[in-house]
Order: sequence, then structure tokens, then C-alpha cells
Amino acid sequence: MTDLATNTPAQSGNTDATVNGIHMSTLKDTVHAIEQEPDLGQCKFRARNTWLGGNHNCTTVTGFYGARQEIAHKQQYELHADEPPILAGKDEGANPVEHLLNALAACVTTSMVAHAAVRGIHIEALESELEGDIDLRGFLGLANDVPKGFTEIRVKFRVKADVDNMERLKRLTLYSPVFNTITQGANVEIQVEPK
Amino acid sequence: MTDLATNTPAQSGNTDATVNGIHMSTLKDTVHAIEQEPDLGQCKFRARNTWLGGNHNCTTVTGFYGARQEIAHKQQYELHADEPPILAGKDEGANPVEHLLNALAACVTTSMVAHAAVRGIHIEALESELEGDIDLRGFLGLANDVPKGFTEIRVKFRVKADVDNMERLKRLTLYSPVFNTITQGANVEIQVEPK
Repeated sequence: MTDLATNTPAQSGNTDATVNGIHMSTLKDTVHAIEQEPDLGQCKFRARNTWLGGNHNCTTVTGFYGARQEIAHKQQYELHADEPPILAGKDEGANPVEHLLNALAACVTTSMVAHAAVRGIHIEALESELEGDIDLRGFLGLANDVPKGFTEIRVKFRVKADVDNMERLKRLTLYSPVFNTITQGANVEIQVEPK
Repeated sequence: MTDLATNTPAQSGNTDATVNGIHMSTLKDTVHAIEQEPDLGQCKFRARNTWLGGNHNCTTVTGFYGARQEIAHKQQYELHADEPPILAGKDEGANPVEHLLNALAACVTTSMVAHAAVRGIHIEALESELEGDIDLRGFLGLANDVPKGFTEIRVKFRVKADVDNMERLKRLTLYSPVFNTITQGANVEIQVEPK
């Protein structure tokens, strides 16, 4: 696989182009800056969650650390999670595992689109369906040998693009940070302190 | 650890109680049904994503399969993802890795609250802050030895509850399906077909 620093429109002198809706020179500026100074790539992403009672809670996302600075989003994003009635909730939002599927869907889509853009692969339309398997006996503590998380997640993309590029587009999803977090795993450290 | 089927208010005859805002008899009904017929615990959660151009895409969540039936949410949930300008987006939503932190925050919160409820641990207030580390060189393909996903995620809870229960409440987060998906990993199968 090549990367975002090669095979780009910039190399053909077309730095102002927008490919797949992405302004290539902006993306290239970020890539080149990180190439020059690798520590600019170190990011800390953040979320803050408040419990609203029962299974309902709300996350706010306001900004992150990257390129050696704090960067604010243009507005605060609020994301509600709840459970459906069968899981003793009031259904005031998608549930946490559905939010995980959203994160994965968004990330593999963005990874495909951005990496396709720098390779000059034009995408006209793109949609995906995701489905993941969970056996609730794990979460409920009813069987110790049953995994508590997703065991298998299936992502089915339908892409309007040159049919010869389907296999290549599939490979580009492997750059996705959320895909890699789920398939490779990450350490999660939890602290609980009195309020 | 005990599980959701033991040490519950139901065992003390208090089946109509609400603990931590969760209606205990509803939760117990689900647990007992799955205890009787384990395959009722098999769930398929789903999401559908549509690319809106550039780094902007939208996930819709409408329902899932569980308890041997299709279950619709009371409304369709829409979740927008985008990237900030520094990552060549228009900042129309939290970005995919922030959505992943949201999923984790929501899930460890719900897991703590529900498992605390069945153990009779009352929680008055609960909030959390999450921060996760990503080196963008992985996603950008600038260094093959740099992980593409989160390497470390820190979750800091502040809980208004009996201070003697802090360690116990921390352990209850280990039931979380999203926590387990991230720390244990899951298979993700990707298909790309022409539209």
C-alpha cells in the first residue's frame, strides 16, 4: 500500500483540486507538516459524559489536542445514549453498542474516501450497512464463557466508482483508526473517584 | 463478581423498585427470560451509513434483532461525523474516533449503573472524562510501525455514592460490551460491492 504522502494530485501540480469533496491542498499541508515534524501527529481526543438517570447518558465533545495545540470544534457536539425498553431504558438515543457501530461506519468511510482522494480514485456515492453480534449473556453475567463484547462485525459497502477499484477501495479501509482499535485492541484504564 | 441474576431487589420481594432510575422488574424479566432460554440473548445490532461528501457522513440507527424478534427504536437516530478543518473536513460533527470515545463512555456508564442497581448500590450522580491517544502517522500511512488506532484510552469517573463502593463500582465497568470489544478486540469483515 502507498500512503497519503504519495501518488497525490499535488505531485501532478494540481494542489487546489477537490477530490471526493476533500480539499487536497489542506490535507497535503497537514501530511507534509507531520512528515517534517513527526510529533505534530500526536493527538489526544476527548469526550465528557454525564449520567442523566437510568440507562440515559449524554456525551459532549468540544475539542482535542493535536499539532501541539488545543483545537476547539466549531460547536459542542452532544450525543445521547439510552437503551430500548426491553433493556430497561427509555429509548432516548441509540444504545452504546450502536454508537460503536456508528464510530466504525464513520471511520472506515472517511478512511476510504480520503485515501481514495489522494490516489485520484473518484467516488460518486458510498453507503454501508453494519451488523454486529452480541450475546447478552456476557453483559448480564449469566455465562462466564460468553464474550461480553461484539464477536463479529460485518460491514457491507456499496460504492459508485470504477468497478475495477473495488478491491483497492476495500484495502483503504484498513487505515481506519476505529477499525484498527477494534481489531487490534487498545488499553483502557479506568479510574473511579468520589465526587 | 456476582451477576445480574443474583443479589437483586427481586430476591427481597421488592420487584417494583426503581434503583438508579432503572425499573428493576423490567430488567429482571429480561434476565430471567434469557436464563430460561439462552438463545434469547443473541442480538444483532445494526447501523446504516451514508457518505455526504468529503469527510462528512451520517449514520442512521433504526432497530435491532434480539429476543428472537426485530425490535424498532421509538424513532430513528441520526449521527453525523466529520473532521475538523485541520483534517480537511468542515466540522459538521464529532469525528469518528470521538464517536468511539462516546460509545465507550456511554457503555461503561450504563454497565456501572445497571450492575450497581441490581446490587442495591445507589448512585446519586456520575460523570466521566475520557482521553485517548492516537498518532496520526499511522492513519496517514507515514510510518508502518505506528499503530493506526488508539493505543491508550483513559476513563476517569467521578461518582456520588458511598465512598466504600468505589472499587466495586470500578469492577462493574468490566461488564461493558464496548469496553470488552475495545480491550479484547473483535473480528470485522468488510465487503465492498459496486452500487
